[in-house]
Amino acid sequence: MTTEDLVQQIRKKKTFLCIGLDTDLEKIPPHLLEEEDPIFEFNKAIIDATHHLCVAYKPNIAFYEAYGINGWKSLERTIEYLNKNYPEQFTIADAKRGDIGNTSARYAKAFFEDLNFDSITIAPYMGKDSVEPFLSFKNKHTILLALTSNIGAFDFQTKKIDGKELYKEVLAISKSYHGSQNLMYVVGATKAEYLTEIRKIIPESFLLVPGVGAQGGSLQEVCKYGITSDVGLLVNSSRGIIYASTAMDFANAAKEKANDLQGQMQKELESRNLL
Amino acid sequence: MTTEDLVQQIRKKKTFLCIGLDTDLEKIPPHLLEEEDPIFEFNKAIIDATHHLCVAYKPNIAFYEAYGINGWKSLERTIEYLNKNYPEQFTIADAKRGDIGNTSARYAKAFFEDLNFDSITIAPYMGKDSVEPFLSFKNKHTILLALTSNIGAFDFQTKKIDGKELYKEVLAISKSYHGSQNLMYVVGATKAEYLTEIRKIIPESFLLVPGVGAQGGSLQEVCKYGITSDVGLLVNSSRGIIYASTAMDFANAAKEKANDLQGQMQKELESRNLL
Repeated sequence: MTTEDLVQQIRKKKTFLCIGLDTDLEKIPPHLLEEEDPIFEFNKAIIDATHHLCVAYKPNIAFYEAYGINGWKSLERTIEYLNKNYPEQFTIADAKRGDIGNTSARYAKAFFEDLNFDSITIAPYMGKDSVEPFLSFKNKHTILLALTSNIGAFDFQTKKIDGKELYKEVLAISKSYHGSQNLMYVVGATKAEYLTEIRKIIPESFLLVPGVGAQGGSLQEVCKYGITSDVGLLVNSSRGIIYASTAMDFANAAKEKANDLQGQMQKELESRNLL
Repeated sequence: MTTEDLVQQIRKKKTFLCIGLDTDLEKIPPHLLEEEDPIFEFNKAIIDATHHLCVAYKPNIAFYEAYGINGWKSLERTIEYLNKNYPEQFTIADAKRGDIGNTSARYAKAFFEDLNFDSITIAPYMGKDSVEPFLSFKNKHTILLALTSNIGAFDFQTKKIDGKELYKEVLAISKSYHGSQNLMYVVGATKAEYLTEIRKIIPESFLLVPGVGAQGGSLQEVCKYGITSDVGLLVNSSRGIIYASTAMDFANAAKEKANDLQGQMQKELESRNLL
């Protein structure tokens, strides 16, 4: 999917919501455990109920890998279902991979070609040759971790390198990578005021923003400091939506939560004449 | 496996060789492609031929994920085969994972409990709460990326934070993590002279050293600057051993390459009276 297609979907649906599919057998409604593939059945129900309220889905790969081969099958079925039934959705493999060149090339093939995700999250620690293999795929997007929303972000990401925080160095240096037009960045919502500084370095790039809701970030603040003329934001919510209820009507409860967020996002877009 | 068990194996076998199982269908001997599970058959042959010459095996998870469910099955069969037939081997899941706490906990469960690896490689960028879930497993080891052997290492790892390179900050800060006695570190052999500085920060920790051979590092230099009274080194070779030949006798060719390295390692150990 091109970035233009993503922007068009955002304007059409009046939402920049991304729904995180952190699907956990211990948290899904118990009645689904009788199904042959409970993870897929859960995802399918959530997707069918919420697709008109969001523009992206983000399976967290760890949750699937934790179930071994069965988990991997559920992941394959989920991305196939999305690509077949809702091809307008931007799909994100939240994998946080990053390795030397030939290994990164393997991951790129696995997620972009075999599974056919539109994008993948990548850790920057190993630098240029660990990221560029992902950037060489046309109309595929690499979402680099810059400033994450967890407490450990302060261990290294906000430390200063020659007077500039590491996460800013990641933003600045990655712009010089071959294929950098395919970069997006993870920026945690718990530090919305950092977005002013971030936008000085990457004024137009799309940001994937976790941490709104459960992790305490504010949608209003994120928009105030981070929105661009092409919106430039994907705001993720996982647990707050998908685990809204464990009753039989869990999908409907998820829809209501997603609908709330879509409504808030529409207001933010309308108030800035971005639709 | 405890660190003491690993040291004992090193002394007994007179080797600190780790063999990287970067198994690639395009590089393995063509006659294996007729097998039902060529990746496992290749690994099995390599392991059977080399197990007496090394103390560790390191499957590179990307190579397995690249083949989807079949690759995952080959990985499961490989680790099961190792744990059943060669339980004295230290097993490393070269996965380079790292995510927020609840996600890291998922990966830890998948690799330490379900697959029963002794250790996993982890990226440090997300800090404390992304690493600690791995450290809480008894007799399991977390191998943190510090200084990698690729060119991209110079993008961030060697940049100075308050006068100290980022990789040194990773070493120093990680020592304060809860469960840090279970930490080991990845340090690339292409920069052996850095080991003097590294040993000032982590004098005893085990180092996993990639980049000897194919990537140009020198075993002698690594030992000169990095060896400890308990050896404290696992030196990895992947392609140089496992792809020594693509003929019918590939496993024997791999054995010869491993035997060369074991011989060199024995010399280094003997010259320092470490056996």
